Amino acid sequence: MSDKTKFLITGSSGFIGKHFIQFLDNSTTNAEVIGVDIVPSSLTDTKSIVLHEEMCTINDSNAVQLLLQKHKPDYIVHFASQSSVAKSWDDISTTFYNNVNSFITLAESVRQYCSDARMLVIGSSEEYGNVAPDNIPIKETCPLHPQNPYAIARVAQEMLAKMYVQSFGLDIVMTRSFNHIGPGQSEAFAIPSFVKQIVTAKNNNTSCTLKTGNIDVVRDFVDVRDAVKAYYLLLKQGKNGDVYNICSGNGYSLRAIITMLSEITKVHVVIEHDQSKMRPTEVQTIIGSYQKINKLTGWSPTINIHQSLEDIVKGQSLALM
Amino acid sequence: MSDKTKFLITGSSGFIGKHFIQFLDNSTTNAEVIGVDIVPSSLTDTKSIVLHEEMCTINDSNAVQLLLQKHKPDYIVHFASQSSVAKSWDDISTTFYNNVNSFITLAESVRQYCSDARMLVIGSSEEYGNVAPDNIPIKETCPLHPQNPYAIARVAQEMLAKMYVQSFGLDIVMTRSFNHIGPGQSEAFAIPSFVKQIVTAKNNNTSCTLKTGNIDVVRDFVDVRDAVKAYYLLLKQGKNGDVYNICSGNGYSLRAIITMLSEITKVHVVIEHDQSKMRPTEVQTIIGSYQKINKLTGWSPTINIHQSLEDIVKGQSLALM
Repeated sequence: MSDKTKFLITGSSGFIGKHFIQFLDNSTTNAEVIGVDIVPSSLTDTKSIVLHEEMCTINDSNAVQLLLQKHKPDYIVHFASQSSVAKSWDDISTTFYNNVNSFITLAESVRQYCSDARMLVIGSSEEYGNVAPDNIPIKETCPLHPQNPYAIARVAQEMLAKMYVQSFGLDIVMTRSFNHIGPGQSEAFAIPSFVKQIVTAKNNNTSCTLKTGNIDVVRDFVDVRDAVKAYYLLLKQGKNGDVYNICSGNGYSLRAIITMLSEITKVHVVIEHDQSKMRPTEVQTIIGSYQKINKLTGWSPTINIHQSLEDIVKGQSLALM
Repeated sequence: MSDKTKFLITGSSGFIGKHFIQFLDNSTTNAEVIGVDIVPSSLTDTKSIVLHEEMCTINDSNAVQLLLQKHKPDYIVHFASQSSVAKSWDDISTTFYNNVNSFITLAESVRQYCSDARMLVIGSSEEYGNVAPDNIPIKETCPLHPQNPYAIARVAQEMLAKMYVQSFGLDIVMTRSFNHIGPGQSEAFAIPSFVKQIVTAKNNNTSCTLKTGNIDVVRDFVDVRDAVKAYYLLLKQGKNGDVYNICSGNGYSLRAIITMLSEITKVHVVIEHDQSKMRPTEVQTIIGSYQKINKLTGWSPTINIHQSLEDIVKGQSLALM
């Protein structure tokens, strides 16, 4: 019998999953990590944790049940999801299936096979939707008015998670996570896509034309390396059934970020409006308050947006060399 | 080309669907009704409407698309659902699939093939969950705190319906419908099950022992014949994107209803507590306000609970003769 603490991570090969595993590897001893994803993580050089990888989708209830029976994790972190608002407009049904039905599959398996495990369930700042200016920075008590399919699926997951706590005695801590940025994010998201185009232009000694949707919406960007530390602290100290914002407390428009990227790289950037990137509804301003998690755990963000962007540019430059 | 007004009714063979079709048959002329269900309705003797029945599940997106293309309805009433809170505890996943994913399938097909149709989407008083005494009778502005899988699925459907209005321009009126009673309801529900047992005892000249769960919860029961009239009025006059309570404004416990049934039938009823019928969480008191729909349409309930119960007993007595 292993006496290691067991963490089961869904979406372990994704942007946040990999950073979380790296955090565990750097900060804990005696941890065993079961990574669950549909593709391998390519994390082969862990130094202190033992990493097992299991390839399956969370929608496969037989596979999920077998995994939980086999590993009996102490902690479960549910990162796996369709995490793009843009994609959610294109396939509402699949977004709901992957982000809500899969959570039900996971929670039902936890009920049956490891009901003592503590779960961390990741929600989104998108759950708040349009927020009155008086309510910014947004606290967790702010009413939820989700405006897009991704956001509605996140609210549904959160309502279900609370029900599993109240009615079935599961131990679940929830987040509403604001936009995460940092090295390693998929280019399906706006900032990594901009960085790639700008770095490519720099390498070619040209200016850069970015085709964008609405870049005047203001979002709260928190560095993924800060966020994974918050997730770890919530796993250890979060209150069962409670929801915590994970955010930076600052808001930037995509336009401001493009300006910063232009300054960092010294590439001249031209912005071209692309109607096909416009969304049916877009929330104007989302800025969060991290007072609640700070009061509980002392967590606050340590990496400012300039540092995040510099590190993303550095990572992308290395990748393109 | 037909110049009839076309109503497409999902769940047309269910308790409410059949009453709605009978209402159309009694109150309208020049209506064509497309009933969609997985079983036939047995409504063969309509006198003024033309009734077509189509057998399919709303989860089958190809079938739903073909239906909408073929019939191009003016009005769509979405009754089809897994409508039992009790069953929703036993199969959370299927409840979500049948009550949320199927709505997405229907709404996506409407977007594509008949985006001018007006839809009526049925929600539930269960969406409110536990309500502070100050908020009773419950108005539509009351915050939603759903406590069970059925209720959460209903809130998700409502959020999605509002999104389809705001972001895709669909024309949708929503309800939060309180408990419907009346002749023809399935014995999977408490009152018809009680009535059947009591009428059987009456026919056998014996007393009746009812095994019950928690019968002290207070619910607002509205007669289905009043409810279907409200649905028709909302189809015609409801405001796009708005939600309306359909309720009686009165609350009765199941215990009080059993007493009334005992008085109506003159059968002595013994109540036996059955632990297996207890639910993980149960909302104590749900009583609604119908002020909003009344102000808009003049609708108010006309059949009181005594009349409803007498008619249910009469229906059941005929069925058992």
